[in-house]
Amino acid sequence: MTSTTRVHRLAVIRGDGIGPEVIDASLEVLAAAESLFGFRAELTEISAGARHYLATGELFTPALQAQLRDHDAILFGAMGDPAVAPGVLERGFILEMRRSFAQAVNLRPVKLYPGVTTPIAGLTPERCDLVIVRENTEGSYVGRGSTVHVGTPHAVAVQESVNTRMGVERVVEFAFRLAERRGGTLTLCHKKNILVEAGTLWQSTVDDLSARFPTVPVDYVHVDALCFYLPTTPERFNVVVTDNLFGDIITDLGAAIQGGLGVAASANLNLDGCGPSMFEAIHGSAPDIAGRGWANPIGAVLSTAMCLAHLGEIDAARAIEAAAVHLLAQLPATAGPRMGFSTAHLGREIAGLVTSGAP
Amino acid sequence: MTSTTRVHRLAVIRGDGIGPEVIDASLEVLAAAESLFGFRAELTEISAGARHYLATGELFTPALQAQLRDHDAILFGAMGDPAVAPGVLERGFILEMRRSFAQAVNLRPVKLYPGVTTPIAGLTPERCDLVIVRENTEGSYVGRGSTVHVGTPHAVAVQESVNTRMGVERVVEFAFRLAERRGGTLTLCHKKNILVEAGTLWQSTVDDLSARFPTVPVDYVHVDALCFYLPTTPERFNVVVTDNLFGDIITDLGAAIQGGLGVAASANLNLDGCGPSMFEAIHGSAPDIAGRGWANPIGAVLSTAMCLAHLGEIDAARAIEAAAVHLLAQLPATAGPRMGFSTAHLGREIAGLVTSGAP
Ligand SMILES: CC(C)[C@H](C(=O)O)[C@@H](O)C(=O)O
Ligand SMILES: CC(C)[C@H](C(=O)O)[C@@H](O)C(=O)O
Repeated sequence: MTSTTRVHRLAVIRGDGIGPEVIDASLEVLAAAESLFGFRAELTEISAGARHYLATGELFTPALQAQLRDHDAILFGAMGDPAVAPGVLERGFILEMRRSFAQAVNLRPVKLYPGVTTPIAGLTPERCDLVIVRENTEGSYVGRGSTVHVGTPHAVAVQESVNTRMGVERVVEFAFRLAERRGGTLTLCHKKNILVEAGTLWQSTVDDLSARFPTVPVDYVHVDALCFYLPTTPERFNVVVTDNLFGDIITDLGAAIQGGLGVAASANLNLDGCGPSMFEAIHGSAPDIAGRGWANPIGAVLSTAMCLAHLGEIDAARAIEAAAVHLLAQLPATAGPRMGFSTAHLGREIAGLVTSGAP
Repeated sequence: MTSTTRVHRLAVIRGDGIGPEVIDASLEVLAAAESLFGFRAELTEISAGARHYLATGELFTPALQAQLRDHDAILFGAMGDPAVAPGVLERGFILEMRRSFAQAVNLRPVKLYPGVTTPIAGLTPERCDLVIVRENTEGSYVGRGSTVHVGTPHAVAVQESVNTRMGVERVVEFAFRLAERRGGTLTLCHKKNILVEAGTLWQSTVDDLSARFPTVPVDYVHVDALCFYLPTTPERFNVVVTDNLFGDIITDLGAAIQGGLGVAASANLNLDGCGPSMFEAIHGSAPDIAGRGWANPIGAVLSTAMCLAHLGEIDAARAIEAAAVHLLAQLPATAGPRMGFSTAHLGREIAGLVTSGAP
């Protein structure tokens, strides 16, 4: 470590529901890592989300966008409230952010940590350690479509999925590099036998780039088959690259397999330096358990570790992941609200483990 | 039972790989049911599939279409061979058949039978008994799309999903009736927060029809969330209605949960009497195990039962399902090639159970 302190400017969006709780726990862990690993996190609290929207009518405003752009990364809690109509925050905020900041890759590790209860019988951590690389700004998420004869018996709704070679290529290239680093296979997940135009673009991009990564074996699996294999033989996969909508679907399945939304982390990565990346747990705002201090902060803490790795703080990222994993293995299999488990407590424990360098 | 013999004219497509083996077993069971339940199945063997295509270049020809149309239903083994390029049989045969015969619904029970090994820890048959009603001729399967600047760095691929009110309505109405009969909830599975045009059409159709089915509670779940819930809490679902592509994906997940492709059955239902319905196991042609007599015929036998139910032979359908379920419960949990299990043997056993009226 050098003696100059590295400064990282982080925007923090606590959001709604359990978002603030899991962010609090994450920030405690972050603070512990800061002192130990010789960097400083300059935090800017940003008000956004469902409650903010209900109070102000504001979503992803130009002012907010400018403010966020001025940061090195974004830590994101969760967004959502039953009082906001479905789709409003998703399209008005999340998708706008991904698009404006060219967060081209949605990165989601599917890793079963020791001691975590998975719904899959007999699954062991050795057999479940893959990463899903989801395209994050194109495909069915472009918001293109139209309906004619609305409200009549002959209504026709057309929904378009748009993929560009450039959009696909940057994601596939990222996935190849990751597979190279992990020494694993790159699997393309699509439905190219039916979605011929999109599938051909994806497959030809993989084929073209494959020449540049001669050490990476390449495979292809239809999305339906992948949903069959993921719960039964996750060891088939190491790095999976896929389209936006398929990625949305299979990463939730991955989260189920790795033991629930509480432990699943994700990164929305900008790859060209033209905007901040965003890091969040996969879970939503979970209004039903908000405010009780029961939310599992592990997904948020692991997302914070991904953020630090992205900012070059590899040692800090490793220490946080190791501490979280160590703690997970200690929790009783039935950890939950009535077992003395609390969000703040877990945050404190992980922070303590990081500080003591224990695991 | 009346004394006049009911005659059902069935077209039988054995197809490729393990298709012929599982069809043989199914026909043995069918024959046993025939004599007992007072109907007669007039079978027409039809040559089609990968080997037929490789030998003749023929897919779903007008002559074949006319011949099939002349039958009350189609029993289908499986299609596929590594020597045929991906997509050729799918688009050239399966999709053409679904479209020409207006097989509007793809019906897939997800039922965990007693004694079947599921990958889900602790899952019991009581908790896993749902039916997925998949729209079968529209959506992303319409084959619409185009690519500009093919093969250049600025290539753009557009893939369209088209849904018509009429297409959606007939499927949703079918699903409502099924939910009414089963006394369960109807869950719409979509991604309406992102796929706004298609999602609005689906949701408004469900809303409109709901008034006609006041006893059926209605629910909505995003497809990503459903892939999280299906392996963890399948008891949340009774009848799920969904779009073609989502249905393709979630039914394979359902097959995994119910203990594998070997036991999963399906029906491609024509609803307006203008063409035959088609019944097939969910598994493919499995070239790797073809010819060894190891294929599990249960999915095909249960599909035959669905065929008989569709033709009004409810008692025969029930007897076959009961026999297959009884046998499943007897098989050692690790049933498989090296356990004395054979396709023909299972077929014979089920036929015997049907004849003796045992279960
Ligand atoms: C909130 C929503 C827009 C989002 C998506 O569909 O991408 C979510 O499901 C996710 O996976 O991050
Ligand atoms: C063979 C293929 C066209 C088909 C589909 O995608 O519908 C299959 O996956 C299925 O689910 O029946």
